[in-house]
Amino acid sequence: MANNFGHLFRITTWGESHGGGIGVVVDGCPPRLKLTEADIQPDLDRRRPGQSKIVSPRKETDTVRILSGTFGGRTLGTPICLWVKNEDARPESYAEMATKFRPSHADYTYQAKFGIRSWPGGGRSSARETVGRVAAGAIAKKILRERYGVEVLAYVNQVQRITASVDVEKVRAADIESNIVRCPDQTAAGRMIRLIEKARKAGDTVGGIIEGVARGVPPGWGEPVFDRLEADLAKAMLSLPASKGFDIGSGFGGILLTGTQHNDPFRARGGKIYTTANRSGGIQGGISNGQTIYFRVAFKPVATVMREQETVDAVFKNTTLQARGRHDPCVLPRAVPIVEAMTALVLVDHALRQKAQCE
Amino acid sequence: MANNFGHLFRITTWGESHGGGIGVVVDGCPPRLKLTEADIQPDLDRRRPGQSKIVSPRKETDTVRILSGTFGGRTLGTPICLWVKNEDARPESYAEMATKFRPSHADYTYQAKFGIRSWPGGGRSSARETVGRVAAGAIAKKILRERYGVEVLAYVNQVQRITASVDVEKVRAADIESNIVRCPDQTAAGRMIRLIEKARKAGDTVGGIIEGVARGVPPGWGEPVFDRLEADLAKAMLSLPASKGFDIGSGFGGILLTGTQHNDPFRARGGKIYTTANRSGGIQGGISNGQTIYFRVAFKPVATVMREQETVDAVFKNTTLQARGRHDPCVLPRAVPIVEAMTALVLVDHALRQKAQCE
Amino acid sequence: MANNFGHLFRITTWGESHGGGIGVVVDGCPPRLKLTEADIQPDLDRRRPGQSKIVSPRKETDTVRILSGTFGGRTLGTPICLWVKNEDARPESYAEMATKFRPSHADYTYQAKFGIRSWPGGGRSSARETVGRVAAGAIAKKILRERYGVEVLAYVNQVQRITASVDVEKVRAADIESNIVRCPDQTAAGRMIRLIEKARKAGDTVGGIIEGVARGVPPGWGEPVFDRLEADLAKAMLSLPASKGFDIGSGFGGILLTGTQHNDPFRARGGKIYTTANRSGGIQGGISNGQTIYFRVAFKPVATVMREQETVDAVFKNTTLQARGRHDPCVLPRAVPIVEAMTALVLVDHALRQKAQCE
Amino acid sequence: MANNFGHLFRITTWGESHGGGIGVVVDGCPPRLKLTEADIQPDLDRRRPGQSKIVSPRKETDTVRILSGTFGGRTLGTPICLWVKNEDARPESYAEMATKFRPSHADYTYQAKFGIRSWPGGGRSSARETVGRVAAGAIAKKILRERYGVEVLAYVNQVQRITASVDVEKVRAADIESNIVRCPDQTAAGRMIRLIEKARKAGDTVGGIIEGVARGVPPGWGEPVFDRLEADLAKAMLSLPASKGFDIGSGFGGILLTGTQHNDPFRARGGKIYTTANRSGGIQGGISNGQTIYFRVAFKPVATVMREQETVDAVFKNTTLQARGRHDPCVLPRAVPIVEAMTALVLVDHALRQKAQCE
Repeated sequence: MANNFGHLFRITTWGESHGGGIGVVVDGCPPRLKLTEADIQPDLDRRRPGQSKIVSPRKETDTVRILSGTFGGRTLGTPICLWVKNEDARPESYAEMATKFRPSHADYTYQAKFGIRSWPGGGRSSARETVGRVAAGAIAKKILRERYGVEVLAYVNQVQRITASVDVEKVRAADIESNIVRCPDQTAAGRMIRLIEKARKAGDTVGGIIEGVARGVPPGWGEPVFDRLEADLAKAMLSLPASKGFDIGSGFGGILLTGTQHNDPFRARGGKIYTTANRSGGIQGGISNGQTIYFRVAFKPVATVMREQETVDAVFKNTTLQARGRHDPCVLPRAVPIVEAMTALVLVDHALRQKAQCE
Repeated sequence: MANNFGHLFRITTWGESHGGGIGVVVDGCPPRLKLTEADIQPDLDRRRPGQSKIVSPRKETDTVRILSGTFGGRTLGTPICLWVKNEDARPESYAEMATKFRPSHADYTYQAKFGIRSWPGGGRSSARETVGRVAAGAIAKKILRERYGVEVLAYVNQVQRITASVDVEKVRAADIESNIVRCPDQTAAGRMIRLIEKARKAGDTVGGIIEGVARGVPPGWGEPVFDRLEADLAKAMLSLPASKGFDIGSGFGGILLTGTQHNDPFRARGGKIYTTANRSGGIQGGISNGQTIYFRVAFKPVATVMREQETVDAVFKNTTLQARGRHDPCVLPRAVPIVEAMTALVLVDHALRQKAQCE
Repeated sequence: MANNFGHLFRITTWGESHGGGIGVVVDGCPPRLKLTEADIQPDLDRRRPGQSKIVSPRKETDTVRILSGTFGGRTLGTPICLWVKNEDARPESYAEMATKFRPSHADYTYQAKFGIRSWPGGGRSSARETVGRVAAGAIAKKILRERYGVEVLAYVNQVQRITASVDVEKVRAADIESNIVRCPDQTAAGRMIRLIEKARKAGDTVGGIIEGVARGVPPGWGEPVFDRLEADLAKAMLSLPASKGFDIGSGFGGILLTGTQHNDPFRARGGKIYTTANRSGGIQGGISNGQTIYFRVAFKPVATVMREQETVDAVFKNTTLQARGRHDPCVLPRAVPIVEAMTALVLVDHALRQKAQCE
Repeated sequence: MANNFGHLFRITTWGESHGGGIGVVVDGCPPRLKLTEADIQPDLDRRRPGQSKIVSPRKETDTVRILSGTFGGRTLGTPICLWVKNEDARPESYAEMATKFRPSHADYTYQAKFGIRSWPGGGRSSARETVGRVAAGAIAKKILRERYGVEVLAYVNQVQRITASVDVEKVRAADIESNIVRCPDQTAAGRMIRLIEKARKAGDTVGGIIEGVARGVPPGWGEPVFDRLEADLAKAMLSLPASKGFDIGSGFGGILLTGTQHNDPFRARGGKIYTTANRSGGIQGGISNGQTIYFRVAFKPVATVMREQETVDAVFKNTTLQARGRHDPCVLPRAVPIVEAMTALVLVDHALRQKAQCE
C-alpha cells in the first residue's frame, strides 16, 4: 500500500510487467502548464529496453498516452493519468518463474508478503514499474526548468571498477547522451561499453554508480527535520530496483577528513552567499543552500544471469534455475532517466512545500 | 512542515535547543503495552551529552516525562506525549551565532528558508532535536522485542580510517556498551577512543560509520514500490544531522562483483527458506526476506571546530568565526542509540502496515 | 491536489467528463481476493445515465476494465487501476459553457481556482467523476461482505416533500432495487417517481435525502479524535457533488430531546452488549458500538435546469444562459450506489486501521 | 491513530482528561508571525468550564504555555507545542466509571476498541480534548485575520426548540460575546439561558445548533474532488464530541426547493463576480466562490445527566448508574470557540494548499 510518492506533487504508479499496462496518476501538478505526450515520450525512450546493444533486447515502444488532466494542451490542475500499454508479453518465457524463486529477485518476498504473485516478468517487482516514474518525472523536470530554472541531470559515473571523471558544475546533457552508456567522460564510456558487452556475452551482469546533479536550486528547499532534502532523495533512490546505496556531497569519502578540512567556508559577493567548497553537496541542515546538489547511487549487478543457479521452488524444495533467452547485462544506462525523474519529483515537491509555508 | 515520521506508528517531534524543551508525540502505538519512563530513560542516557570524555560536555540530564497516553503503567492506544525539559541553557555562549553563520551548519539555510531562526544552540537544527526520536524509538524497540522477537542494534564500525571487524549475526548489545565509543571490536575501540581524544585536544572533529542491524525480522515487511524497507531506512538515516550516506547489504562495495557473484542462492530446510549468502542485506524487492538486515550510515565530522574559520555574517559581509568553549569531537558514540531508534521506528511502522493489508 | 481518499485502503480517482476516460487506482486492497470486472460492473450500471426515464438520458455504457492489480482473477495486493472510457462525447452541446458560467455549478470556481477549466460537460467537476468512486466502492463492498459480514445499503428516503417510511434494521437490497427511484417504501416510491417526471417535463429539478445503512459492523471501528467514524462518513458524503448536509442517528432531530430522553441505555445478553435504542446511530465517541449505523445525506436539486437564467460570462459581463437538450431531473436514484460506495470505502479503511493498531 | 488534522497546517493533539495535561503540536505554521500565549489564552478562556452559571462548574484555569516554535515572540516555522496542565483532578468522583459504562458516552467503545481505557473523566474521549484544538485554532484565526482578511465567527443559533434570528453577513463578535449563551439574538439568548438553567436544575441536558460563518474568503479555496471545502468542514465538525449533523448553505432545508428556485444567479460588478443569493453557502463545486461561507452543526444533549440510568458494567452485567456531582447542562456556549477553531484550521490549511498549487 505504498504506491504513491510526494506530498504536494504526488504520484501514484500502477501496473505489472504483464497485463493491461503501466501507468501513473500525477496529482497536484500546477495548472496551465503546456503539456502533451511529446514532453514525456523522450524520457521514456531513454528508459525503454532495446535502445542499444548493451541493454535488454525486450521489444517495447513504451508509447505514452495522456488519459486525463489536460485540456487544449495545458494542464488543468486535476489529476493527470498517463498510460503505457504492455506489448512484449511472452509469459511462456517465464514459465519456470511460476514454480521457482529467482535468486536475489523479489519472487520469494512477494510470495511471502502477499501470498500470491504475478510471476510473468516479475509482475509489479519488474523494473518495468519505473515507466510511471519516468513519465511523471518528465513533467516534474519541465516544471523545474520552466518555472524555477533548475536543471536536473544524471549520468553513469562508474561501472564495476571503471570510474569516470566528471565536473558536476559543467556536465551537459548532450555529453551524457552522446554515447550509449550515458557517461559524459568519453574515454571511460568506451571502456564501460566494452566491459558491459563482455559481461553480456558471458551471460553475466555488472553494476556501478549513477551520479545525480541538480543545478540552480535556490536556497530554502527541504523540510527538516524528517523530510530533509537529502532524506527524500535517499528514499527516492533506494526505492529504485537494484539500488543498494546513496551518498551526497562528500558522502562516504568525507569521513576520512577532519571537521576543519570538511567544512565549506561561506563567502559573500554581490549580496549573495556562496561556499568556496561544496562538500555539503548543496544541502545543509536538510535545506538547499544554493550550491549545486550532487549525489551518488549504487546499483548492484542485475540479478538475472544466464547461468545455472541454486534456488528453491514454490513448494520449498531445493532445485536449480537456468534463465533462458534475453538478459540485461547492465541496468545503468536505462537507469539514468529514472534517477533524473526521481530527483525532479523530489525537487518539485519541495519547491511547492517551500512556497506553501514560507513564501 | 515535516516533523512527523511514519504512517501507522507515527511520531511528531518538536522543540528547539533552547526553550521549553524537546519532545515527541507518538500516535498509533498499540494499546495495553507496559510503559513507564523507565523504559525510555536508558536510551536517552546513551544519547545525552556529558556521558564520557569523548563526547560533548554539555550538561543535560535529559529526564523524560510521559505527559499522556498511558494509564496504570500501560499504553492506552492514544497519543503518547514525551517531554524532556531543557536545562543547560547558556545563550550567552552562542552570542556570536546571532550575527554569523557557522560554516557547514544550518544557520544560513534556516535563515534563508524561514527568514528567522532561533540562533541559541542552533534552535531546531541542533542535534538536540534527536531526543524526541530516541524517546519514541525506545517504545518502538520494546514493541519489536516483545511482540515480534526482533532485535535492533547499532554500533560504531569506523572512525576516520580505523575500521572494526564485526559479525552482524553475532554482535551483542553488551559488547557494544562495553566501551565508550560503542564499538564491539575492542581492539578497534581502543584505537578509536585515542583518535577521538586526539581530535578533541586539537579542537577538531572526526567522522565515521555506524552500522545498524535488525535480527529476527520475518519475511514480508516492506511496502513496494515507494516505501521499500530499505528506502524508508535510507530516509530515516539521511534525516539525521551530519549523516551523508547510507548503504545496505553489499552496498557500494557490491558494485565490484558480477551478478553471478552477487546473487544470494536460496536453500530450503525444514519448510523454511534461507539464503546461503546475504549480500541483499535481508531485503529483496523492498521486502524483508527473513535474513538479518544490516546497513551502514556515514557521518561527516561535526562542523563545530575550535579553529578560526572564514564565514559570512547576517548582513552578508565576509568575516571570520572562532568558536569557543565546548565542542563534540565525534558524534558517533551518541548517534548509536539514534540509529537504533530510527531503525526501530521504521520496522514497527512496517510491521503494522503488513498486518493491516496482508495478514 | 486532493484526488485521493482513505489511509490504508486508498483510492485515487482521475478523469474528466470529456477526454480519455474516468478511472481510479485502488492501493492497499488485501491480496488474494477474487476480483473480475463482473464484481464491479453491476454498481456502475446502477450509477450510469440512461437507465430509466427519470434520470439523465446521456448514453454511456460505462464499461469497466481492470488494467492492473489482479492475476488469475485474484487481487495481488498491488494497485488496481480501473478504467472506464468516455463515449458520449458531444462537446458541441456544451459550446455555451465555454464562455458562460452556469449558475450554482463549478464553472466559475474552477476558473477562479485554476485559471483554466475543461468546459465540456464540466470537466472534472462533472458528477461523471463519481464513476471511479463507485468502481472502487464495489471492491470495498465485496471485502466488507466476504471478510467482515458487513452489509452496506443506501436508498432514497425523501424527494422534496415526499418522505418514505423505512426500517433501517430490515430494509433489503431487493426492495431498494425494485423500483427506478430506489426507495424501498413502494407507496412513497410511486409518488416520488411521479414528482420527478413532473419536474423533468417542467425542465426543472428536485432534491432530497438518501439514507445510508451499515449492518454488522463490529464494535471498535473509528479512529478518534479526528478520524471518528462519523467524521469520515460526513467528509465522504459532503465530497459528493450536490450534497449539502449530513446527519447521523438522531441527527438534527435529536436536538429536540433532553439528554435523559436521548441516551441509549446499554443492556447485556449472552456476553454481548447492545443498546435498547439507537439514537447514537451505531457510533459512540467516534467508534462503532456494534449497532446498526445509519445516516442521512441531503442533496440539493441539480443545478442544470431548462430555463433561462441570469449569469455572467468569462469576461465578467452580465448575460443569460439557456441550457438546451438533456437534463437530469433528480440525482437521487443514481446517487444511491455512490453513497453506498463511499460508505464502504470509509468502513474498509477503518477495518484495516483497527486491525493495524488494536488487533 | 488519528490525532492529527490538516495537510499543510497540521495539528496533532494529545492528552487525557486526567494526567499530565492536554496539548497540541502545530506543524506548518508560517514563520515570522507574532505569537505569544496572549494570542491563545482568550479562546481557551471562552472554552473553559466554570465561566458562567450555565456551563460545567469544573474548575480549570486552562493556562496555556508555548513550549516550542517561537523565538523573540515570533513563530520560527518549526513545530509549535502548546501545553495546558490538568488541574481539577478528582478521580474519586469518577470511581463508578471504572466499572460501569456510561450510556451514550464512549466508555464502552473505547474499551471495545483498545481493550483498556482511562476511566477518570473519560480520558481521551473527554471534551477536554478540545483544548488542543482551540489553542491551535487561535493561531489559525490570527493568520486568517492578519494575512487574508478572513473573519471566522460562530454562535449558538438554536437551543432545543428556541431559535435565533441572525444575519450571517452582519453578525459581530461583540454581539455573540455579549451574553453567556453566545447567541447574538439577545431576545432568543435570554430564553435560551432560562431553558438551560431549567435543565440544569432538573439534572438534565439540552442540545441545539451552532452556526459557523467565514467572511472574506477569496474565490479558489477548496480541493476537489475529495477535499472539497465543505467536506473538510463537515469532517471537522463531525469530529467534535456530541455533534450529530452538519449542513451548509441551504442545507437540509434546500431540498424543498426546485433547481430553478435554488440556483444562485451570478452577476458582475466592477470586474468582480458575486451571486444575488447564497444558497450555496459560499462554496460551489467544493471551492469557495467569494461569498460568505455559513453552515450549521447539530449537537445532541450532553450524555451526562443526574438521573439513574440503565447500563452495563465492565463484566457485562446489567446494572444502573447514578451520576453524581457536577454536570454540564448544555455544551453549546463552550462549543462556540471550538467550532470557530475547527473552521479556522480548515480554512488556513486550504489557503496554504491553494498557494502551493495554483498561485
